[in-house]
This record gives sequence, C-alpha cells and structure tokens, in this order.
Amino acid sequence: MAVCLPDTQDDTPSIPIKLTKLTRVGVTGVKKLLQLERVNKRPIILLPTFDAFVDLPNDQKGVHMSRNPEAISEVLETVANDKGVAVEDLCAKIVDKMMTKHEYAKRVEISMTTDFMFMRESPVTKNKTQEMAKLKAKAIGFRDENNQIKIKKSIGAEVIGMTVCPCAQESVRESDKTKLLEFLDEETTQKVLDTVTFASHNQRGVGTLLIEVPEDKIVKAEDIIDIIEKSMSSPVCELLKRPDENATVMNAHQKPVFVEDCVRNMMEKIATMYSDFPDDVLITSRQENHESIHRHNAFAEKVTTMGELKEELNIQ
Amino acid sequence: MAVCLPDTQDDTPSIPIKLTKLTRVGVTGVKKLLQLERVNKRPIILLPTFDAFVDLPNDQKGVHMSRNPEAISEVLETVANDKGVAVEDLCAKIVDKMMTKHEYAKRVEISMTTDFMFMRESPVTKNKTQEMAKLKAKAIGFRDENNQIKIKKSIGAEVIGMTVCPCAQESVRESDKTKLLEFLDEETTQKVLDTVTFASHNQRGVGTLLIEVPEDKIVKAEDIIDIIEKSMSSPVCELLKRPDENATVMNAHQKPVFVEDCVRNMMEKIATMYSDFPDDVLITSRQENHESIHRHNAFAEKVTTMGELKEELNIQ
Amino acid sequence: MAVCLPDTQDDTPSIPIKLTKLTRVGVTGVKKLLQLERVNKRPIILLPTFDAFVDLPNDQKGVHMSRNPEAISEVLETVANDKGVAVEDLCAKIVDKMMTKHEYAKRVEISMTTDFMFMRESPVTKNKTQEMAKLKAKAIGFRDENNQIKIKKSIGAEVIGMTVCPCAQESVRESDKTKLLEFLDEETTQKVLDTVTFASHNQRGVGTLLIEVPEDKIVKAEDIIDIIEKSMSSPVCELLKRPDENATVMNAHQKPVFVEDCVRNMMEKIATMYSDFPDDVLITSRQENHESIHRHNAFAEKVTTMGELKEELNIQ
Amino acid sequence: MAVCLPDTQDDTPSIPIKLTKLTRVGVTGVKKLLQLERVNKRPIILLPTFDAFVDLPNDQKGVHMSRNPEAISEVLETVANDKGVAVEDLCAKIVDKMMTKHEYAKRVEISMTTDFMFMRESPVTKNKTQEMAKLKAKAIGFRDENNQIKIKKSIGAEVIGMTVCPCAQESVRESDKTKLLEFLDEETTQKVLDTVTFASHNQRGVGTLLIEVPEDKIVKAEDIIDIIEKSMSSPVCELLKRPDENATVMNAHQKPVFVEDCVRNMMEKIATMYSDFPDDVLITSRQENHESIHRHNAFAEKVTTMGELKEELNIQ
Repeated sequence: MAVCLPDTQDDTPSIPIKLTKLTRVGVTGVKKLLQLERVNKRPIILLPTFDAFVDLPNDQKGVHMSRNPEAISEVLETVANDKGVAVEDLCAKIVDKMMTKHEYAKRVEISMTTDFMFMRESPVTKNKTQEMAKLKAKAIGFRDENNQIKIKKSIGAEVIGMTVCPCAQESVRESDKTKLLEFLDEETTQKVLDTVTFASHNQRGVGTLLIEVPEDKIVKAEDIIDIIEKSMSSPVCELLKRPDENATVMNAHQKPVFVEDCVRNMMEKIATMYSDFPDDVLITSRQENHESIHRHNAFAEKVTTMGELKEELNIQ
Repeated sequence: MAVCLPDTQDDTPSIPIKLTKLTRVGVTGVKKLLQLERVNKRPIILLPTFDAFVDLPNDQKGVHMSRNPEAISEVLETVANDKGVAVEDLCAKIVDKMMTKHEYAKRVEISMTTDFMFMRESPVTKNKTQEMAKLKAKAIGFRDENNQIKIKKSIGAEVIGMTVCPCAQESVRESDKTKLLEFLDEETTQKVLDTVTFASHNQRGVGTLLIEVPEDKIVKAEDIIDIIEKSMSSPVCELLKRPDENATVMNAHQKPVFVEDCVRNMMEKIATMYSDFPDDVLITSRQENHESIHRHNAFAEKVTTMGELKEELNIQ
Repeated sequence: MAVCLPDTQDDTPSIPIKLTKLTRVGVTGVKKLLQLERVNKRPIILLPTFDAFVDLPNDQKGVHMSRNPEAISEVLETVANDKGVAVEDLCAKIVDKMMTKHEYAKRVEISMTTDFMFMRESPVTKNKTQEMAKLKAKAIGFRDENNQIKIKKSIGAEVIGMTVCPCAQESVRESDKTKLLEFLDEETTQKVLDTVTFASHNQRGVGTLLIEVPEDKIVKAEDIIDIIEKSMSSPVCELLKRPDENATVMNAHQKPVFVEDCVRNMMEKIATMYSDFPDDVLITSRQENHESIHRHNAFAEKVTTMGELKEELNIQ
Repeated sequence: MAVCLPDTQDDTPSIPIKLTKLTRVGVTGVKKLLQLERVNKRPIILLPTFDAFVDLPNDQKGVHMSRNPEAISEVLETVANDKGVAVEDLCAKIVDKMMTKHEYAKRVEISMTTDFMFMRESPVTKNKTQEMAKLKAKAIGFRDENNQIKIKKSIGAEVIGMTVCPCAQESVRESDKTKLLEFLDEETTQKVLDTVTFASHNQRGVGTLLIEVPEDKIVKAEDIIDIIEKSMSSPVCELLKRPDENATVMNAHQKPVFVEDCVRNMMEKIATMYSDFPDDVLITSRQENHESIHRHNAFAEKVTTMGELKEELNIQ
C-alpha cells in the first residue's frame, strides 16, 4: 500500500483508558530468533520483529527505554524451553513483564510479525514444499480500577494467494460467445460455454486476517492461514510441476473472486469456525490484490465483532 | 517501523457511522503528477500517491472500482488551473466526486502522500538548497441524517531531522568531569563543563505531525514542516559546507531531546499556533529515531484533541 | 527482488581504469525536484533521486563529500531554463561539474532514477490517463591519457505491464480440448479452440531497458517506454472502463509471453530502432514477473552490445 | 540506497563465458527455512531468500523454470542433517544440482541473503544479547572446456554499526578551544582538549564485506561480522543499560571514521586475516552511513583482489 492504512488500531481491543491523555513510547523493529518447542512435534522457528510501547503519563518526562528490549529478551529466554506456548501468549508474557518493569505504566502494547513456514503439497504431483506466510500477534495490557493487570491478545496472518477477476471473465465469455454463435447453435454454444475455462485477469493477492483470542480459547496459526488461502481463487505454491500449474490455473478460474469476496469469505469462515467465541471479540480481514491490469492495487477491509458478524450471517 | 503501526485510524476524524457494518473497498497506490498554480508564486509540483475507499453496504455485492481512479483523474484535471487549492481541499474535492459517482456510498475516504520540496538556507554560509519532506492529506466524507454530504479533512507532514540524546550526553559530561577534576579545581571544572560541547549519540529522526483543518481555517504545509523541524535537536540540510556542519552539530548538542520531547514540542507548538481551532480538532504527533547505538528505533506518539491539549498546557 | 541483483555494473560502459585500484566514494539518495523546459511543449517535471560517486586514489585519505550534492544543485539550477536538455545529458553535466570540483578525480559516476509521467489512451473508450514509469539515466566520466574528460551516458526506463504465461494457457487449452471432444467432432473442436480465449495465469510484470547513448544521438524516454510495454503481453492502464478491461484481457491472452520472450522482444525492437548506433553501445534488458501462481518472481536478463545483437539477429 | 548500486556483479568471480551471448533466466525471492546442524553446538537457523539463475543459450526458447525452486528444495532437504555445511557450500550444492537438472546450462548462479543471529555482550554490564546481521552467500558454476563443472563461491555479511565523523569532531574541538582560551592558559587548554569527549555527528552505518572462498579454505561468518563491526567507530547493541550506553558513546568518539576509513579498515583486516588465500580471490567492501545531518547517505566501496590488496598494503 502506498499510504499506510489503518492497521492495528482498528484491530486493537478497546480498553478503558483515554488514549488522548497518554503518549505511547517505546521501541520499533527489535528483531529476534525464537525456537518454540512443541510436544511430540518439530519445534517452531520464528524470526519475529517486535514493537513494544508503554504509556507515558503526562506528569512524567520520559520512560526507561532499555527496559523494553530487556523485557523482550528475558521473556524469550524463558519461553525457549516452554512446551506449547502460542505467539499471542508470548506477547502477553512480554506485556506482563513490561508492566512489572514500568510500575507507573497504565497501558503496555506489544506487537510482532514474523515469517512462518508451513508445509504444503502441490495439487496434483503431491510434491511437498515449504511455504511462507507472515504470522502476526499482539497483546495489550492495562491496569483496571483495582490495579489488576488485564491483557487482551490477538493472532493473525498475512498470506499470498491468487485471485481471478469475475467481471473480466464474464466479459471475455460474452465476447467469445458472440463469436461461437457464428458457427454453433445456441444449445451447443451453451455447452461449450459451460465447458471452457475462459480467461480473465488474475494476480497475486495478499489476504490478512486477525482475531482476538479469549483467555481460555485457542486459535491455531495454521487454521488462520488456511482460511485466508481458501478465501481467494486459489492457494499458490513455490513448486508446481506442469500438471500442478494446470490444476492451479483451472481451479482458480472456477472460483473467481473480487477483493470484496475475499473479505466476505474470510469473515464467513472465521465466524463459523469460532462461533463459540464471545460477542465482543474483534475481527479484522483485509485483501489487497496486485492487479495485473493496473499499476495500482485493489483493496477491501472489514473490521467487526463476532457478535455483529453472527447477527449479519445468521449464525447461532 | 517493522510492524505497521496505527497510522491513519488514530488521526481519523470520528464520524457517526458504525464502521463494523461496512466494508471499505477501493484502490491503493494510484500515483499522479500534479501542478498547483499559486497567485504570484511559482506553482507547487506534487507527485501524490492516493488511496481511495468507499464503503460497501452489506446488501451489495461489490463496488464499481474504476470510479475511484476516475474520480481522482477528473478532480486533478479540474484543479490544475485552480489558483490556490490546498492539498486537503483537493482530497475533499475527490471525496465529493466519489460521493456523487457512488450514489449508495455512506462514507468515502481519500488519503494522499507526496514528496514536497521546500527551500532552506544552510545555517552559516546561507547556501540555498532544495529540501524534501513528505506531505500528507486526508479527507473523509459521509452523508448525514438529511442526506447532506459532510467532509472532514486533515493535513500533515513527515520530516527528517537530527536528534541528540540528553541522557548519554549527561553521562559523558559526568565521566569527563571526573577526569577534569584530576587536574582542575571545582570552579574551573564547572567553567569548562559550561563551555565544552560534550558528545552524545545522535541520529536521523523522523517527525510526523497531522492536524484536522476546520472548514474556514488554513494550515500551511510550510508551517507544519517548520514545527516538526524545530521540535528536534536540529534541522538537517542537503548541502552543508564545513562552517554549516560545525554549526549544525554544535546547535544540535545545545538542544538534546528524547523522542518523548519531540512529540511534546510538536504538540506545544501546534496548540499555540492554532489555538483558535475548535476543541474537537484531532491532532497526531509521532517521532521515530533511527538510534545510532542500536539496530532498532525509538518511538513516541500522541493522539489528542485541541481541547484536551489546551487544557493540559493551560492555553486559553 | 529479494537479493539485490547486478544492476548498474552490467550496464556500465567499460572504461579504461582499473577499478580495483580505486575506491568509489560519494552520496546516495539525494532527492531533487526538476522542471525541464521544452520548446513548444509542456515542461517535463521530474523528482529524481541521485547517487554521485568519485574515485578516491589510494594515496588520498578522503574526498570533499559536500562537493557532490553541491555539484548536483548547481547543475540543476543551470538546466532549469535550458530548453531541451535530456536526462542523460543532465547526468553528464553533473559528471563534468564534479570532475572540475574534484580535480584529482580519475572517474566520476552519476546515476538517477525518477518517476516519469506519460499520457495514454485506454484501448476502447479512449479515456486519457496519466501513467507512471521509472526513468533512469547514468553518466560516467574519466580522464584519458591527455587529461581530457570523456563521458559515457545511458538512458533507460522501468515500466509495469501484464504478462500471460504461454505454457499454462497451452495446458488449459489441452484440458478443455479433451472435454470438448466428448460432445464435438474434431473439426468443430478445432474451430472452438481457435475462437475461445483460454485462461492462463497472468500477472504484473516489470520490464527494464537501458541503452548507452552515443554523443551525437538521441534516445527518447517515450520510445524506451513504448518498447518495454510492447514486449509484454499488454500494457496496463490506471483507468479502464469495462470495454477497456475486456480488450486488455483478450489482447493480452492473444500474446502470451515468457520472461525470456520479454527480454528477447525488447532486444529485437531496440536493435531495429537504433541500428545506426555503433557496435560497442551497451544494452541491458531485464524482466521480472510477479507470478500469480507463486510467492516468488520469474526473472530474465540479457546484457549485450549493439554489435553482438545485430549479428545475432542478422540486422545490417 | 535510492538507486540500486552494483551489488553482485562487482563481487562476481570472473568466469570464462561471454555473458553477452547468454540470457540469465531464473527465479528471485524464494524464501526458505533452514536448520544447519553443528557438531557439539546448537544448530544454526536461517531464513534465506534465494535467487537462482541459469543461462539460456541463444538457440533455445526457454528454460524449465520449475527446476530452479525444485533444486533449492532438494538440496535443503539433503543438508538438513549434514553436520557442518557452510552457507557458501550450500549455494555450491544448489548450483551443482541445477547444472544436472539443466543439462544444456553453461552457467548457473545462486545467491542468498538471510538474517543471521549472533550473541554479544554489552560492553560494561556484560548483558548477553541476541544481535542480527545479514549473511550473504553466492556460488557460480560453469562447465569448462572438458565439460567439467567448476564452481566459485563467496561468503559475506552486512552489519549495522555506529560511525562518528572525524571532521565535524575536529571542528567542534577547534570552536571549543577558542572559548576555553578565554579563561584558560594554552597548556591547561591543551590538557582539557586531551581529556574531553567532543561532540560530532554520528549515525547508523551499514558495512558490507564479501570474499571469495577457495575450495580448501574456510571463512567463518562470525569473523566477517567481527571485521565489519571493528571497522566502524563502535559496534551497536540491542540492549544497553546506562553504563553500556556511556561506554559505547565514549569509545565511538575515541575512534571517529569516514566512510572511506570503514572500507579501508575492512580491507586491511581481511587481507591480514586471509593472507594465505590466492591472489585472484575477489573481495568487496562497502559502507553506507545514514548521515544524521543530511537526508541522504554517505557511501564508499572498493572491489579488489587479494593480490592487489597485499601489494597495496605491503603484506607478504
């Protein structure tokens, strides 16, 4: 995106502190290597980049800046041997540590983004390949009226896929139909139209989905990635032999989608999958397509709550 | 910044439409060349990149996407010969045009960012040089209960300057003081301490300031740039001969500032300069320093209203 | 590209100084605004970013760095009122100025890249739109055995277009042919195959073309852009109404090209257009496609001389 | 850098194939996760991004593109359990695999860049911190006259450090000296000048160093990183408590360096450390400083061979 768009504020859990009375102070771009052990599984390896902020009350001149990277380091050392910690919990732990280090802090915010490797099979030859997505996590902590620390956390991902334009495909079909009718009757033409994979413009699309994770719930990174990929015309793959490429292109053209459809698809899938989450859970979905027919991108975004989404989609 | 931070949402004028009921759909990265004529002055030349969004009501499948770049083009043609149009007014005009083209739209949003050239003199040799900042503008329109279009608009800038760390400078002074006391008495040492320009770490800083512009008011881009530059330790300059370099370094070390100070300085200056603006005017200031002693950056940000700011600073 | 690729060295005119005996020292990222007047035409507006290097002989400790941005500024002031200066001549003028300012310099190198606006008509509705490319220019100067300054200069552009994969299209056609043969005879099937616009994957492609400009010759930026665009499956356009989008997609699918083809097409067109240029003129063409079916890009590049090219293509 | 600079070509081992007769075709931006096992040590974890090219002979229309990512995948699987493989050997293995897959290929080129974590202690409090550099490796293979595959490989790194300007520091010292002489005699003034840490401008610098690795030799990534860091005014650190920050700033100001000095320092250190390498070994060093007093960067680069370097530096 040329101009940076609303990114994290929209997906920021609402917290009862007047932001206008505070200044967010901290560090950006702290890059770490992290290996998260898994029970009976290969460890997950991440190279996260952290942003860490603490509020500066109006009556204080500055914060002790070095406590922010220090808190990140200390938590990363602790979790290295902790089986089964999730990335959003990792962020929550850093928030907690920062709350302790900055005893005056009313609000602490951690966000991270990291390359995340997942395995895929190519559609026909079933070659296994490593694929990369961006994994995102965030935690915001604040002290409530009883000075208790409350933390809200979110997880999300940004995944590349392929999108085929429905509108251009329809117009190509119409153009070709006219030509076919010159030598075929209507019925045969219709059969051809139902058979042939008509061209459209297609392109690299980038889908993003973020969801707040309630304290006692689990959201798997792999499920978020899966939802994002399935909301586009087709997933992409780093290694496609000829039959795989054929299948990818043909499948994608069976399922043309607008940017708006990608956002809608993500929202529908996430509302169905996590329908037991509370109504106030915040969800953001975003799609940006690198249009092959333009220099600019197409974009759609929706920010909503689980409650509103279920009402809209008539999910019980 | 590694992870994209709240950028435009914080500085988005609040508008009485529930965003969660809408999807923002549009284009990003539309790049244009624009020449704004001025009365009795050289024209201003801009190369803005636009993002343009319209809401998609839940009962509608998609928007007519091509109307967005079309609206931008049409407005740019119109203003080309219009003396004295401001960038935030330009955005407002595009919002208005898009409201007409998307008759179902309840909300339209335009933001732009552009390189912006301004002239400076170097501090001692008074060489004139072209300097570059990023100019930013934004407009959001919506239809009120009487179906009247209301538009809120903002202007801002992002400028590079130099920041010197007060804390490191103080600690260098203390270390050197101990050494000076080995061969000087206390009084002479104090005189030396008052005379000498002690080292610190200093670095490239990026200051950003955005302010909502009420309908009948004017905010000059040059004034915003000036406020941002004056809130750091020193402005920077593309062409510095030796005496200029000396003055820049010495002046900057007379005025060491933390990221927090830069944000505070910007807020104080803007509140003083535009104290006649209404209380609900939204202001955002942000500072990011590319720390010379770290791989990561230091960051501070405050989002507030003119009313709160004046109260805080005791401005009438 | 993830890893920065050979960019300027390949396209650097060979010059009789042993580079290994020198250190290139200078400034990068000097951004300027520039208006080039044209005879009987609207002025060309550019926002170039310059890199400027001078060699540091082994027996010298450092260069006077401020002379580099100073040379750029001084030349830009001069050319502002100079009708008809070309960007590569502008670079040559800066080289010359730097050669004078750094009297010890054996070699001076200037390169610039700038957004460049050109006008286009959409293919069917003939809407006029502003389109953006990157314009590139370069000049390298050196002192020959008689202490005379010699300068070699180049011009180039980087343009976005659309590429359709021939291989995937062929495989889709084959798949659909099998299905058509289930209800059509061979002859009718063939007619359908000849009529229908079959799908493929297509994507945003970035073509780059650079050519050395002999002293007495002229290469127009617009011609370079035109060659790059025509070497892909289709040009792209910022404003496409429905019939334009249809034509763009259908035309592009009539002319599927691999990255290799784009490079070959550019080379053929440039060799034909400038066949009167000397044999030692260096030419670089490069194509990078943002594959819609992969996370990675496809890439091809050829660096050659006019002489070799003409031999290869049998051009007299 | 604004305009992409000679990056890999300069540091490309010279190979006896006329490049102008070939087209390089391949993939860019292939991102993988890789864990290299070490004997008696923690494994090294890398997230490399690969570019992979093969030449396209003039008589052939295209290459089998999918063989490139396939070769990368296959080699990565093999080395995963291979103790002690170096990154440049990894690239050499991929070159070899690609040579086999593209039997017509005369030349194959692989380059990779990856985040690389190394441990550091802060200078005073001896806090251990994770630090990040970019590790780079490259291999180029070709078939000689006997159809034997020959491979040349290189390793390098890009590291952030701190640079202090000697020239500005000297001018600040001179200015302060004049003021000191107003109340101190010459001898005492001189003692003060010898004691005090005078200010200068300092900034984030980025050093890059690449060296060709002969078949039977070893170059450790950590040693390259160490050389780059020691060639600047001071290394930087992600976690600095107050005494560490003091030491970093004071040490850096004891060792002010120009961009030219950084390049010279790297060259001297590498020539001394690997003086047993053959004369034709290619070495590139590059420094780019994000000047705190300018919007633009300062830059220096030298490309040379071990033989020339030893001659220049009088190393036996």
